[in-house]
Amino acid sequence: MTDLDIIIIGSGPAGLSAAITAKVRKKNILLLGQKDLSTKLVKAQKINNFPGFPGISGKDLEHAFEEHLNQMEIEITEARAAKIYDMSGTFAVQCGQQMYQAPAIILATGMITQKTFPGEDELLGKGVSYCATCDAALYPGKTAAVISYSKNEEHEAEFLAEYADKVYYIPMYDGAAFNNEKIEVVNEKPLEMVGTDSLEFLKTDSSELKVDGVFVLRESIAPDYLFPGIEMDGHHVKVDIHMTTSVPGIFACGDIAGLPYQYIKAAGEGNIAALSAVSYLDSLKKEK
Amino acid sequence: MTDLDIIIIGSGPAGLSAAITAKVRKKNILLLGQKDLSTKLVKAQKINNFPGFPGISGKDLEHAFEEHLNQMEIEITEARAAKIYDMSGTFAVQCGQQMYQAPAIILATGMITQKTFPGEDELLGKGVSYCATCDAALYPGKTAAVISYSKNEEHEAEFLAEYADKVYYIPMYDGAAFNNEKIEVVNEKPLEMVGTDSLEFLKTDSSELKVDGVFVLRESIAPDYLFPGIEMDGHHVKVDIHMTTSVPGIFACGDIAGLPYQYIKAAGEGNIAALSAVSYLDSLKKEK
Repeated sequence: MTDLDIIIIGSGPAGLSAAITAKVRKKNILLLGQKDLSTKLVKAQKINNFPGFPGISGKDLEHAFEEHLNQMEIEITEARAAKIYDMSGTFAVQCGQQMYQAPAIILATGMITQKTFPGEDELLGKGVSYCATCDAALYPGKTAAVISYSKNEEHEAEFLAEYADKVYYIPMYDGAAFNNEKIEVVNEKPLEMVGTDSLEFLKTDSSELKVDGVFVLRESIAPDYLFPGIEMDGHHVKVDIHMTTSVPGIFACGDIAGLPYQYIKAAGEGNIAALSAVSYLDSLKKEK
Repeated sequence: MTDLDIIIIGSGPAGLSAAITAKVRKKNILLLGQKDLSTKLVKAQKINNFPGFPGISGKDLEHAFEEHLNQMEIEITEARAAKIYDMSGTFAVQCGQQMYQAPAIILATGMITQKTFPGEDELLGKGVSYCATCDAALYPGKTAAVISYSKNEEHEAEFLAEYADKVYYIPMYDGAAFNNEKIEVVNEKPLEMVGTDSLEFLKTDSSELKVDGVFVLRESIAPDYLFPGIEMDGHHVKVDIHMTTSVPGIFACGDIAGLPYQYIKAAGEGNIAALSAVSYLDSLKKEK
């Protein structure tokens, strides 16, 4: 792969708009997301206020976006960013066992619509984790649970099972299947993470799973977990009108950058974020 | 006409997006602009980065926008806002001889691409004006020139001629015609407005027109002339990420609200401005 200029995290209207504009500006981009772009978008029954597409369904708007990406030869890499590391002058993005590197990052992860579980926030880093790949090595001979919102995460469980003795895989979707004796699919509803100083067990609607760790693998991850220290404004990444965040080189757009949660607003901000990232890359060149 | 909630000034991508979202939110709106939406848009050969419309021409994108406005029964009122007055709690917008009133205003005027003439800035208010209707009454028995960028302004000249003895009409377009002996069409190129304390004459490429006033009627008017005192950031109206300006009740979006000059950015900001205006209207109701 040639050197990347910008890694765009998220393939909803904000991320794809950023990708399109960055590509127009001839940047090497990596667009991390999902092939059907955005679960939220696809499920939208009718969108009235995306100019040019009166009363379109989310599905049809997604098709129009896909066609746009295809025509511009923009590919989506199906991977979930789990962590961003500052490598001074460049950033590394961890996706499962893969690391990608670029001097500029655009966060377009959308908002996490699921609420966290009781105990999750308190026990984060004390047995609760959002990245199996990052923390798998801490689990040799241990037992862990994976709460997963997507089939794409099954390989994360496989990787975890290379270290752990036992993995309970709790799918929040239908059709999870493994050919791995260390992994047990548990079709129960997770309710609470219980522990005082550290995680003791995971409570579900029908059992208590005694585990050393719980991995919660949602579609998107809170930005201040993805990149600790980034300035927040409530649940949103704090941005200015140029979509710059408190971290030079990291930009944000779409729902994660604040209200209103609207497709056209997200697409507009993606454009701004991409052009701000391009300016930032130019400024780096000048410094050299 | 029922009471207006929001007056939107400008029918480019920012203004029409604001109109669409405001209409979705069931607000009574007045959209001031031109039937072909935006001269700049219509002339765009190819737009690559308006998501959903890969490589579309400006003309085709305009048609898609028009179709959207039609389906939502949003009409464009062909008028040029010349001045906004603060009526404490509501705003009055002057368009020719017509006044419109609403508690919230969205500025989506685009940027003035023409440069001002030498002498224009210095003599503004000292013989140079942007609003014939506003100032016509100051010209009884006098001589004035009108530099006009649109056929729509011909009625402004007619109105001025009701007061002035003589009006030189200098069209910056083809096909200006009057049936009014007080109005003389002058097909010369204006070069400079000359005067020390006040305007003395208008210099063209082939003559010097001795006039008491010059009216420059461009497609859009600088926002700090439209509403004196609004805070600017260079040539742009200063906005925050909610598209609010320094004046409560006035919002701005699109090119006039800052770089980058991009259609999708403008459309996104129009959406934000409309929703901010809706929140503002709600807050007014609560105060009552």
